[in-house]
Parts: sequence; structure tokens; C-alpha cells
Amino acid sequence: MDNITNVTVKPLDRGGKFVTPIRVDYEQDGKAKFWEAVRVSKSVSCVIFNVSRRKFVCVRQFRPAVYVNGADGIAWSEPDVANIGPEISAKSGVTWEFCGGICDKPGLSLEQICVEEVLEETGYAVKAESLVKIGTSRCHVGVAGEAQTVYYVEVTDDMRRGPGGGIDEEMIDVVELGVDEAKSMLGDDTVVAPTDFFWGLSWFFLNKNQA
Amino acid sequence: MDNITNVTVKPLDRGGKFVTPIRVDYEQDGKAKFWEAVRVSKSVSCVIFNVSRRKFVCVRQFRPAVYVNGADGIAWSEPDVANIGPEISAKSGVTWEFCGGICDKPGLSLEQICVEEVLEETGYAVKAESLVKIGTSRCHVGVAGEAQTVYYVEVTDDMRRGPGGGIDEEMIDVVELGVDEAKSMLGDDTVVAPTDFFWGLSWFFLNKNQA
Repeated sequence: MDNITNVTVKPLDRGGKFVTPIRVDYEQDGKAKFWEAVRVSKSVSCVIFNVSRRKFVCVRQFRPAVYVNGADGIAWSEPDVANIGPEISAKSGVTWEFCGGICDKPGLSLEQICVEEVLEETGYAVKAESLVKIGTSRCHVGVAGEAQTVYYVEVTDDMRRGPGGGIDEEMIDVVELGVDEAKSMLGDDTVVAPTDFFWGLSWFFLNKNQA
Repeated sequence: MDNITNVTVKPLDRGGKFVTPIRVDYEQDGKAKFWEAVRVSKSVSCVIFNVSRRKFVCVRQFRPAVYVNGADGIAWSEPDVANIGPEISAKSGVTWEFCGGICDKPGLSLEQICVEEVLEETGYAVKAESLVKIGTSRCHVGVAGEAQTVYYVEVTDDMRRGPGGGIDEEMIDVVELGVDEAKSMLGDDTVVAPTDFFWGLSWFFLNKNQA
């Protein structure tokens, strides 16, 4: 999964398939202003806790955006153009996450989308009514700002229907994480993880497993 | 601050001033893949707790990205083109946040940048050595993925040097938030706030004010 080679970065022309930059013009208290952003869909994520073995069920994957924006020391040949070799370890782009995904299936509720993502990515069959809502936050309010709703669900070993790993070529590793290990990851700068990972863990320790 | 009028959205051509979309090509286990993202700078944010009056010091501002990506019911005249009027309340784009900013000042440490942001946005003069690091997370790992380091600092009334509010035309409101009110905001879907706001509050309740 972290065998990453031949990385190139270049500017994306208008009309990217997934990322659409937009310009917002507006007046605030009568004063003309503008802001640049991207259009993005709502998303869900889900803290999964296997009560049979008292382990979190996490996913790990290589995230190109994390790799490119997170690494110091990339040699940019011109602004936004780079060829990146093994001098930047692929591990710097491999995240710890709870499973989730964007809401791109019209007609499905957030809970239904979450149920599908949990099954696809981790192999656990959960019911929508067993999801506990942790909350909804806005991701990256400077550039994106869409709503991400975060859930918590408890599973048992016998709810697992398959290995997970995502669909098509997602290359997602399913990894279990012990409670003490998870606690030690809170505040550890070497852990590469999105903000909702730390929020979700914090919610667990506040609500399910008081230290 | 939330008197927002004449909002238009349109696609941003390559060469935006602040948002640069990029395309990352790479091979994973020998298989050619690509990803679209934006280039973004590292950032800091800071949970400020005024111990004189036991209040969090928060900032509120209108976030165009939140307004456009967060609202249901925008009438798009074509993909990524819209004129938005008062049918979408400006309040839906006004966030609760802890102060912070991007690291765009070369030569300054993260802590020094955080100190400057706290002063500019809230008026409190804090020392770098009094900052407690909560942790570092990656914002929006699908599209951005840069590191955001979150701090905690305690202040007293006599450390306030001015009203804050940001520089130039940032139009940032400084708002105090009581501990009980903050606790009730955790998990409240009607609160419009970035993920690090909920993570920062959760950290406080886990580490500073056990319920």
C-alpha cells in the first residue's frame, strides 16, 4: 500500500473531475469582498469499536493530498510543479482514519451512506439505527467548509461479512487499534490523521471510557 | 458582520490568488493513479480560556466556503455558477471558531505565529512558552491534508491589550463562551464550527475540567 513511485504534481486546469475551484464574490456590510474555495460534497465518518475484542476498527490509506501538502522538503521546480522521489517517504502520506466517505448517492440518508461505507471499507454489517451521532463539523472552513457528520458504532466479531478494503482500487488497509494505544495517539504529533480521528477518539474517552 | 449581500459563485480559472488546484499523478504498487487536490499552507489554532472569568475566547466570522458548501437549497444556474440571495441566511456561513491562521510568515515558529494570531484576533498578549500543544491533525485529507497544530492557552483579563477583530478587513467578532454552554455545543448539529473547535473543546473537558 505504501509502495508509491513516480509522483508528479502539476497545476490542475479548470474542469478537474473531482476538485472544482470556485470564486465567491459578495458584499459584507456593503463592502465588496471575494473568497476562493472549492466545491465539495457533504461526508460522513464512523468511529467503529469492536466490543468483542475492545479494539477500534480503523482504516489506513495513502492520501496524495496529505503527502504533497504535509511534507517539508519537496523540491518544487516551479510553483506547483514537482517530481517527488523516495526522498519523501510514502509513509508521510499514510493516514490513520475512521472509515467514511462523501455523500454522493442521491436519495440515501447520511446514516444509510455511513452503513454502506462501513461495510465497503471494513467488512462489518451494521444497522443504521445502531449509529450514535457524535456530531457534525465543518471541514477546513477556509477552503471547503462542507458538513462532515461523525458517528459511533459498536460491532462484534460475528458482524463481519468480509475483509473490507474499499471498492475498485481504493487500497485501504483495515487495522485494529487498542484502547490504550489509541489514548497514547491523542496529542502525538507523529500520528498522521485527520481532525475527526482525534475528535472521535476524544468523544469515546469522554463518553464511553472515562479515564 | 452577517450583513451579506450580492453573493455570486463562479468557477475559478487556474491561477487563483489563494487556492491552487493541483493534480498528483503517482503509481501505487505499480498501478498508475491520480488525485486532485489543492495546495495549502500549514496552520495553527488556539483554544483560549480566560481563567479570570472562566470563559473560552472564541471568534466568529462569515466564511464564504462554509456558506456555499454548507447550504442546501442553493439554485445553481449551471454547474458551479450561482447567484445567492437572502433565501440562504448569511448566518449559515457564520462559524464558531478558536482563533488561528495559516503559517505564511517565513522564519517564525508555529508558536510565534500562534501568539501573533491570538493578539490580532482577540487582543490578548500571550507568551509562546505558555502555549500547551493539544496536537497536530490533517485538515480535510481528501482535498487538502496540511498540518494544523492546535494549542491551548490560559489568559487573564489584564493580558488584554486591545479589542482584537483581525487586521485590515477581516471582520472578526470576539465572543466569550461559558464552560456549560460550550459543553452543550458538543454534538449539537446546529452549531456551525470547524472540526478542531470540537476537538479542542473535547480536549479541554478531558484534560482540564473533567465532567
